[in-house]
This record gives sequence, structure tokens and C-alpha cells, in this order.
Amino acid sequence: MLNVVKIGGNVIDDRESLENCLKNFANLNGPKILVHGGGKEATRLSREMGMQPVMIEGRRVTDAATIDIVTMVYAGLINKRIVALLQSYGCDAVGLTGADGNAIPAKKRKPNPIDYGFVGDIDSDRVNHDFIQSLLEQEKVPVFCAICHNEEGVLLNCNADSVAAAVAGGMANVGDCRLTYCFEKPGVLRDVNDDTSVLPLIDEESFPQLKEAGIIADGMIPKIHNALESASHGVKEARICNASEISGEGGTVIRKKEK
Amino acid sequence: MLNVVKIGGNVIDDRESLENCLKNFANLNGPKILVHGGGKEATRLSREMGMQPVMIEGRRVTDAATIDIVTMVYAGLINKRIVALLQSYGCDAVGLTGADGNAIPAKKRKPNPIDYGFVGDIDSDRVNHDFIQSLLEQEKVPVFCAICHNEEGVLLNCNADSVAAAVAGGMANVGDCRLTYCFEKPGVLRDVNDDTSVLPLIDEESFPQLKEAGIIADGMIPKIHNALESASHGVKEARICNASEISGEGGTVIRKKEK
Repeated sequence: MLNVVKIGGNVIDDRESLENCLKNFANLNGPKILVHGGGKEATRLSREMGMQPVMIEGRRVTDAATIDIVTMVYAGLINKRIVALLQSYGCDAVGLTGADGNAIPAKKRKPNPIDYGFVGDIDSDRVNHDFIQSLLEQEKVPVFCAICHNEEGVLLNCNADSVAAAVAGGMANVGDCRLTYCFEKPGVLRDVNDDTSVLPLIDEESFPQLKEAGIIADGMIPKIHNALESASHGVKEARICNASEISGEGGTVIRKKEK
Repeated sequence: MLNVVKIGGNVIDDRESLENCLKNFANLNGPKILVHGGGKEATRLSREMGMQPVMIEGRRVTDAATIDIVTMVYAGLINKRIVALLQSYGCDAVGLTGADGNAIPAKKRKPNPIDYGFVGDIDSDRVNHDFIQSLLEQEKVPVFCAICHNEEGVLLNCNADSVAAAVAGGMANVGDCRLTYCFEKPGVLRDVNDDTSVLPLIDEESFPQLKEAGIIADGMIPKIHNALESASHGVKEARICNASEISGEGGTVIRKKEK
């Protein structure tokens, strides 16, 4: 079973959390792929350079100066920091963007109704699973940041949750695959202030109800949508859990339909 | 014959020169590897962030803040810009640091007599030629920046000329290999102000004489030293030439001994 694990912002921003999380990931047996988000470093760097990040609906507007900054931070600083740490834990990581080996071609998002600039959307069907599989067969561990390209020389900022779901969906063409979203909470919570209120299971029937009741809101909506989307591409299981549960069973399982 | 091509600062700083150079590289037939330097971008970015770059004997002193900056610029911005352009020219580039797949392990330079900080030295014998060869066998084109690691989680800034020589020397274990250093001049010049005064050949006998006569000086000395060093690791031919001559025969050939 191939594990595709996505780690997010809060885990990356703190050095100790990052190290603990990567040690857990390094200990996962079998073939695995890591996808990482960006954290606050890109925002900090933009500010140091006198730029004010613009966010619309939680997504960064990426002008020409900003795609340079996120490429530096995500593909350079964070990706290589993660690779060097994983290598030191005996995990043979290879850091990649979607441009490298044309692993994940993307399409620039249309400028209507909102022009996000150099932002790309991706598709499981276009993930270069042969190249990724060849790395896995050499016992390499691909580590993707969410920078992709349009195959015409232009780098595009993509959503890391979507990249993880697309990679898992693409790799499901090759064999059994599991998708795990790690973040700072123990799972999807019924009550956001109560860490013991983890919802054990969400499926495509309960998802709209939970959204309507306001239990699932904000950034959790596209995450669960991505997880359900990967399930329709053949991903066996999707899970949202705490970074300490990478190799465990805790958190919220996302399935198309309750078995 | 494997071609290992190194492109340097001046070619990288100008967008049009870079594109022309990469088109020439993309047109080279057969297996190939690109190694790139940094250019002035890292210095510009350091200054924007209020830092003053410190150089000793033409080499950058790399403190903790500086290794972050060069990792961002070399491994992020420049490496991925090159990969995306090569991909758009139909060249299946994969951008790597020496940390990725443990391709090029380095040793942190001893702090005596000069403490350069996070600067690494590398060795042809430790280049992971199996991993690099596996990419070449898939018709991938590895594109290395000069960031390596110490296998203990620490990234190190290395000299791009040395990385190119070490990679060529390491790959000479697998098969025939040629090293080409590209820069803005047509080759090693007898008279630095006369572009027609290209020295056609330098060998280990003429090199000390040319140094003593002051004809070869400054940054050209380590470049030729690296080229001779790669020859002793089995590299068939080393050449220093203009970026327009990547697939040509022009420039200065460096050999151990005149045949």
C-alpha cells in the first residue's frame, strides 16, 4: 500500500513539530510520498521585501513577484530543509516540484471571476505516475511542494491539498494507495473547541449534512472535497489526522460511502 | 558520451542569454546533465533583506541566514526556472540539489584558516552515480544547483564548478563523459581584452607556466584545476567555451597531457 501524506502549514512553521512529524513519516513502512504546504515563511519573506500578500477566500493571489517568492520558499527553503532532514533520518527523499520530470502538469486558472494570477489547477489524470513509480521502485521517497508548471515554461502556485489528492488519485492507477492529511488537530471535530469530539467517519452522504449544519466549515471543506475526489479516482482510504498519527489509525476517515 | 555542462553567473542573470543557452543545451543529443551557478540574484536578495554579502577570495561566506537565502535562490528560483524552461523546450529536466536522493554528499569545510560557514566540499568518489544513472536511463536530464548536504540534515553551499567536475568524475565510473564549462567569453584567453586570443589547449604541463606568466589568473585558476582533476577521475575531455558553443567544438580544451 502506497502512503501519500500531506503536511500543512502549522507543522512546518515550528522546527520541533516539523522534526517530530518527519521522524514519524520516516518510520512509515513501504512506499510513500510526502506533499508539503508552505507555512507562514512566504508571507514573512514577502513582507520583508516590502510586499503585502493578497488573499482572496483563503487563497494567495500570485502575481509575478509572488510566484518568485513562493518558488523560493516552497521549492527551495522548505522542500530542501525537509529533504535534508529526511535524509538524516535514513529516508531517501527526493524533493520535486510538478515541473521536475513533468511530474504534475497544471493549467493556469482562468482569470474569471477572480484573477489569482500564477495559480494552477491540476488533475489526477495528468499526474506522471510512471516517473513517480520509477522513483518508488528505487526506494526513493518523492517529496512534493505545491509548485507546478504549465509545460510552457511558466511555474504555477497550486494548492497543496489538491496536489496531494491528485498525486494519490494518479498513483491509484498503479496500485493501492492511501491519502493522509496531517494537521495540528486530532481530526475533523464536531466541536472545534473540543479535541475529543473527532468525527470518526465522513462519507459523501454525511458531508453535505455536516456542511449545512455548520460543523464543517472554512478550509476543511475543500480538504474533504479533495479527499472524496481522490476516492473517486480509486484511492482506498483518505484520512485527516494529527501529525503524530501519521503511522497510526486515529483521526477522521473520509469515504465515498459508508461500508 | 554523457555531457556534463556547467553554466555560470553571467548567463543566468540575463533572461535572453539564459533562454538561448538552455535552447542550445536542450538541442544536445544523448544523455546530459546540467549544473548551474547562482548569479547575482542571491546577492540582490540578501541586500533587499538588509544583509551585506561577505566574500573572501571570491567565495561567499555562508552564515545561517545566508544558507537559507542561497537555498531559496539556487535550489528554488533559479533551478525551477531552468527546469520549467527546459521542459518547455521538450527536454525532460529534473531539478536536484545534492541532498535529493543523496546524489552528492558533501563535507562541511573546516573553519581554519578561514571560516566560510555553511560551505561544503565534495568528492567524485562519493557522487551517487547509480541514482543519477537511473535518471539518465529514463531519458531524464538532471539539473543540479550547487547546494549539497552533509547527510546529517545540514545544507551546504558548494562551488558550482566543483560540483560539475565532481559529477563528471563520478559519472566517468559508469561510462564515457565530457565536461563543458560555459561562460560569457569564447574560451581561456591569452589576452583578456582580445576575444580572438583563445588558447586552444591547456594541459598539466602548460597550466603552471600560464599561471606563472599571469595569463591564467583569478577565477580561471580553480576552473582549470577542477577540469584537470576531473580528467584524473576519467573524464574524457574538459572544455571551457562560450554558451553558444555548448553543442560545438570551440573554446579551450583542458587535458592532463598533450596527446
